[in-house]
Amino acid sequence: MDYTASMDVTINEIRQAHRRISPYVHRTPILESRALNRIIGCELFFKAENFQKTGAFKARGACNAVFSMDESSLQNGLVTHSSGNHGAALAWAAALRGAPCTVVMPDNAPQVKIAAVASYGATISLCEPNMAAREGAVSRLIEHHNYNLVHPYDEDMVIAGQGTATMELLEQVDKPVDIIMAPVGGGGLLGGTAICAKSTGDVNVIGAEPEGAKDAWLGFKTGERLAVYNPNTIADGLRATLGERNFVAISENVDDILLCSEEAIIEAMRLIWTRLKVIVEPSCAVPLAAIMEQPEQFQGKRIAIILTGGNVDLDTLPW
Amino acid sequence: MDYTASMDVTINEIRQAHRRISPYVHRTPILESRALNRIIGCELFFKAENFQKTGAFKARGACNAVFSMDESSLQNGLVTHSSGNHGAALAWAAALRGAPCTVVMPDNAPQVKIAAVASYGATISLCEPNMAAREGAVSRLIEHHNYNLVHPYDEDMVIAGQGTATMELLEQVDKPVDIIMAPVGGGGLLGGTAICAKSTGDVNVIGAEPEGAKDAWLGFKTGERLAVYNPNTIADGLRATLGERNFVAISENVDDILLCSEEAIIEAMRLIWTRLKVIVEPSCAVPLAAIMEQPEQFQGKRIAIILTGGNVDLDTLPW
Repeated sequence: MDYTASMDVTINEIRQAHRRISPYVHRTPILESRALNRIIGCELFFKAENFQKTGAFKARGACNAVFSMDESSLQNGLVTHSSGNHGAALAWAAALRGAPCTVVMPDNAPQVKIAAVASYGATISLCEPNMAAREGAVSRLIEHHNYNLVHPYDEDMVIAGQGTATMELLEQVDKPVDIIMAPVGGGGLLGGTAICAKSTGDVNVIGAEPEGAKDAWLGFKTGERLAVYNPNTIADGLRATLGERNFVAISENVDDILLCSEEAIIEAMRLIWTRLKVIVEPSCAVPLAAIMEQPEQFQGKRIAIILTGGNVDLDTLPW
Repeated sequence: MDYTASMDVTINEIRQAHRRISPYVHRTPILESRALNRIIGCELFFKAENFQKTGAFKARGACNAVFSMDESSLQNGLVTHSSGNHGAALAWAAALRGAPCTVVMPDNAPQVKIAAVASYGATISLCEPNMAAREGAVSRLIEHHNYNLVHPYDEDMVIAGQGTATMELLEQVDKPVDIIMAPVGGGGLLGGTAICAKSTGDVNVIGAEPEGAKDAWLGFKTGERLAVYNPNTIADGLRATLGERNFVAISENVDDILLCSEEAIIEAMRLIWTRLKVIVEPSCAVPLAAIMEQPEQFQGKRIAIILTGGNVDLDTLPW
């Protein structure tokens, strides 16, 4: 893989990705709740990627990457690092094509996510919960086994795949949307979302990030990506550090990134559970939490939010 | 109201109900999970009434009853007793037509259900958690205020309304279903389900009931309805005693009623949460729990299950 700051994803790559992955992924529904709209003071449309294959939008990017590869690359074996959802997604996509797959996971990843990766038949390699340890473990595996890396977010095919959620969303919501929001961890989803949304014209794209993992926010505001950051947030899906390609995609296409507190994430997560009646993981609640803490610019607006995943450990709920 | 054992609900009343309530209730989706199907060994289709207005199928029956009444009956005021979901549904339906509404609730009803009834503007009257106390409180309110009772289940219009979920389900599942299952408490849902399903022909209808609330099972097996029963189950929506009309509907149209343990209810509820990614209350899990404890007759079958509601208190989860 070529690790430079170039990023070659346009709406065309997202359209190709959508054709490529449609036979394998779900066209997830849009959820709405009038009661929730009244509480928040906006018209909200939630793209329910918690219902996606493997329980998260990550199935899109992993599927696009795997189905873009030739047979011999696949048979070498695939490797990635992931706090959980990308690992499960890659394990699932690799299994669809019969490719061996190893997933490096931080040893504080939720048990339910480790079990999910294992259930798709991948080999799991645990490491310390920081980016240096993850990337070191992956490098060693590539060196020893000649595996092919499918990076969880800093990879064009993954960014293009994640963008397909927004392509569907804009088709499914039959009214003009003012704002599209997605949480940002490594930036695969927000990057793909922004590229797709901006190509359709008049919609604001706003990222949301936990205060305790604000590396993307810092990079976006200062114009310089942080390569190292130690996150501390309940939103386990957002603990990754913004990638290089993702920094480019976000800098060029995102209108703003907002922060939110851990308390607001928990409150927003409860609201989604009780009002939409769906299981979402804490990362999903980050955009709604940002709206709740900074409501002014959102009042009366039509806002689409991507619910990223539903893989939550029911034994360690945050309330 | 005329309290005899006559029951005049046919497929025609269910069709009328469907036309009457369709402008107000959701046509809820069918949920499927291949992973869950593999675990259980059947092909399962879940009608997601947890996404229904007021969070439960009860909106159907209450809406049908309220929209069948004339203006002067409505202005007298409505009353009912309910462990929660019918109370919220009647409060909601009454508010749609501007009718005053009082709901008698057992004082051990989940806080979230009491709050829901209040949120629709109804007056709440708490009583001891048994049928005699509920019915006594309702009788006194009718005597003093001349309110009109909308019984939570022992009422033709309510039974017909609940049957509309199955009418939709059979349209939505595009394969022939072998078995339809619904939980049974008072019997409004199971009665309406069975009348609707049997009019379509070749489908088995099986009720499911917690071992700790097995009055319907006892009545079904012995041919004699139990008028008094003290239930003890986590499935708070199923603590009511089988009604007279419901006993008739179920005796005539249901093929079997199966029991399940409290442990199986909790396990099935967790499976639905983790695999379907939706919030369901314990009552919803009762049919799946019965399948899991008596799997033989279900293996390889195509089974539709009505998920009854999603109003669960997140602070008192059973695990």
